[in-house]
Amino acid sequence: MIEYEEVLGRIEGAIGALRFEGGPSGLFTPIVYALSSGGKRLRPALTLMACNVYSDEIEGTLDAALAMEMFHNFTLLHDDLMDGSSMRRNRPTVHVQWDANTAILSGDAMLVTAYKLLGRTEAKYLEAVLNLFSQTAMDVCRGQQYDMDFECRGAVSGEEYMEMIRLKTAVLPACCLKIGAIFGGAPPEDADNLYDCGINLGLAFQLQDDLLDVYGDPAVFGKATGGDILAGKKTFLLVSALSQASSLQTAILTKVLHSATVKADEKIAAITCIYDELGIREQTARQIQKFYNEALRRLDALCVPPVKTQILRNVCHRLLVRQS
Amino acid sequence: MIEYEEVLGRIEGAIGALRFEGGPSGLFTPIVYALSSGGKRLRPALTLMACNVYSDEIEGTLDAALAMEMFHNFTLLHDDLMDGSSMRRNRPTVHVQWDANTAILSGDAMLVTAYKLLGRTEAKYLEAVLNLFSQTAMDVCRGQQYDMDFECRGAVSGEEYMEMIRLKTAVLPACCLKIGAIFGGAPPEDADNLYDCGINLGLAFQLQDDLLDVYGDPAVFGKATGGDILAGKKTFLLVSALSQASSLQTAILTKVLHSATVKADEKIAAITCIYDELGIREQTARQIQKFYNEALRRLDALCVPPVKTQILRNVCHRLLVRQS
Repeated sequence: MIEYEEVLGRIEGAIGALRFEGGPSGLFTPIVYALSSGGKRLRPALTLMACNVYSDEIEGTLDAALAMEMFHNFTLLHDDLMDGSSMRRNRPTVHVQWDANTAILSGDAMLVTAYKLLGRTEAKYLEAVLNLFSQTAMDVCRGQQYDMDFECRGAVSGEEYMEMIRLKTAVLPACCLKIGAIFGGAPPEDADNLYDCGINLGLAFQLQDDLLDVYGDPAVFGKATGGDILAGKKTFLLVSALSQASSLQTAILTKVLHSATVKADEKIAAITCIYDELGIREQTARQIQKFYNEALRRLDALCVPPVKTQILRNVCHRLLVRQS
Repeated sequence: MIEYEEVLGRIEGAIGALRFEGGPSGLFTPIVYALSSGGKRLRPALTLMACNVYSDEIEGTLDAALAMEMFHNFTLLHDDLMDGSSMRRNRPTVHVQWDANTAILSGDAMLVTAYKLLGRTEAKYLEAVLNLFSQTAMDVCRGQQYDMDFECRGAVSGEEYMEMIRLKTAVLPACCLKIGAIFGGAPPEDADNLYDCGINLGLAFQLQDDLLDVYGDPAVFGKATGGDILAGKKTFLLVSALSQASSLQTAILTKVLHSATVKADEKIAAITCIYDELGIREQTARQIQKFYNEALRRLDALCVPPVKTQILRNVCHRLLVRQS
């Protein structure tokens, strides 16, 4: 098996070697900027690791892995513009560093580049890979629209929230694992199990994000906690709390969340207090564990010896216990 | 041969039958709105007509033809947002009817939908069709970036302008004709000749657009002439004029174009007067004729009897003599 660090090294090497033909530089410089800002490189790593479960030869999967990273960064670029986020990975976002038009058009070019990279797929896998990716890309667009819709809406149910994050966050790691499996020559049932593994991993990942934003250690988390509360963002924690709150707690949650006068730290304290009263932290942790266990069960079901999935398991575990 | 009206009828039927699975409606309603606003349907028609040169069976090419129309409307949607255009085909543009975020995300979903439609291509043609389309989509992004760059720049040479419109406007009809040819089973040289035919057709089309905006008959043109002049837009006419103008004419052109005090009708009259002095109208008409002739020569070079390309020729002719 190829070690995780080696996988990451190959990805960084391939990203560094990416070249765009011809001009104009105004289109491509922001793409290089967006890609070079780091990040976990989780999605291309999942693609390569899934391939490696079935094949020692992962070089031919590198373009597809890059396509996944390119697509992920395209969504960040357009989402940051739509959400008005000014910082990403400690740097100004593209629409701040340049302007909105640059973010739109360079983003479009990134989406096309993802397809160009996938277009290099061996003919026998091309149809399956292309259609899975397009379905995934459409799901991600749907998820983003639901997310924006939810921000302008009153009540959002737990089911609606889970479906939104399934689309917005979980289908992409699922797609990455399945595409890697296809490139590795996995049997179809294994490819489907890896897809389901990715869905569960993605859901656990997003709930962990929601949890850390409230209960993370700021020193490790890398930024102040409570950002989601201050933004009034509908997270798993808030949606769960609202579904279980007493009428008094509901009144406090609603009033404090949308108050323009309550100070930031008081807001965070008041909402966190209700989360604590309702045991939201423990409930969320249980859900994360549930999805994590389900992800591992899908790995257990693969038609390969357990040693083949050890590195994938390690990465899943690291995602679960991460503090940032 | 299938008549042009029949071709258009099939396209409208297919657009009307398009369905988007699942929600949210906030993502898909703007797509239906953008697609239902009419337009010439030139690009899907070119796709089907090119197929029909080689095959009586065009039904299997309908999804690819729709993909071309979907992509074209995606570019209009994002371009209108980037250019701040508020009207398109006598209706508010998507970012006006809804908002900027809707235009961004629904546009993204249209680009993905184009790829989904192309993903239905028969396996034997898929790689060629996909990669031609991705290259074309990237070219169109590059053309749009050059166009935006040119608006913020001083001098633009005739060569630069022609390369910009080749990318922004001409590669898509070229791609449509070639994809149609591939679906029809055309020999590779014919597919390439049809691509070149489309390039020349696209260039002629854009120059005709530029010409009509100044010299069109407002009653037939459907809108007031002089819009490009008032917007200070770099067109073939302006770029040509600037490359030939005396120092006095250059001074007038530059001063009048960027003047905030000269009235609209006086601006149009002054610029048009210089165009007339330099013979820009005739020069542009000659260029259009040159590209049109070149397009027809590529049709002559195809390995099919002339009767097979008659409908395509008629459409080319109609584009050349169009007044709106």
